[in-house]
Amino acid sequence: MQLTYLFGKARTISTDTTFPHDAEREHGTSFMPKFDAGGLLCAIVQHVATGEILMVAFMDAEALNATRQTGVAHFHSRSRGTLWKKGESSGNILEVQEILVDCDQDALVLRVSPAGPACHTGARSCFYRLLENGELKQI
Amino acid sequence: MQLTYLFGKARTISTDTTFPHDAEREHGTSFMPKFDAGGLLCAIVQHVATGEILMVAFMDAEALNATRQTGVAHFHSRSRGTLWKKGESSGNILEVQEILVDCDQDALVLRVSPAGPACHTGARSCFYRLLENGELKQI
Repeated sequence: MQLTYLFGKARTISTDTTFPHDAEREHGTSFMPKFDAGGLLCAIVQHVATGEILMVAFMDAEALNATRQTGVAHFHSRSRGTLWKKGESSGNILEVQEILVDCDQDALVLRVSPAGPACHTGARSCFYRLLENGELKQI
Repeated sequence: MQLTYLFGKARTISTDTTFPHDAEREHGTSFMPKFDAGGLLCAIVQHVATGEILMVAFMDAEALNATRQTGVAHFHSRSRGTLWKKGESSGNILEVQEILVDCDQDALVLRVSPAGPACHTGARSCFYRLLENGELKQI
């Protein structure tokens, strides 16, 4: 399947967060991503086959455009302040199969096929601990 | 199962984000939630039975404490600047069955049993649209 079919052509994305567009944003067919005051939205990464949540990160308009253009997940590194292609050094890229958009368009779910562990620790998912009885347990 | 067993006693949570604690934070058993500069962390809500991602919201220390104390999801409303008990007016509360914590402890997955639709639009999940060919399609 062509990425252009999946995601359409990358477009210049408005970062206007002041005009509400609420009805259109919630019920319409137009993609109007709503970035926060820091220019970011939340992107949850979910394994397309298993439904497991692998990680969560933030995207600015540049990361979203790069993801749509390449079909590989890109984020914005808040610590480095730069575009971050997930897996660029490790090879553990995330191939994006589907992008879901939430009601007010300030969050995305990337349904992905991961090339390897999603977590920098080597774990399959970053969510490898359960809060139980006030402490963290490996799962 | 007792909530105290699931989540332990609510404790005063440090909002110190300057001292790294990286190794302990990533590999230890201590719950050391890492709030961002705005005092928030990201909480993803997942249906405990189906794995469907229902919504994502933000928690401050108050919302996290309220969630742990009651077993019902509370968030911080960024628009209103207040504690937000999900479902307080609609009745569509989210019973928290498990809390997963990510590697650097700045994000949580709440695995929940929802009392009704999670989305204020009446949809089961806030993620009811797919980005396809540059437009949004209902799923």
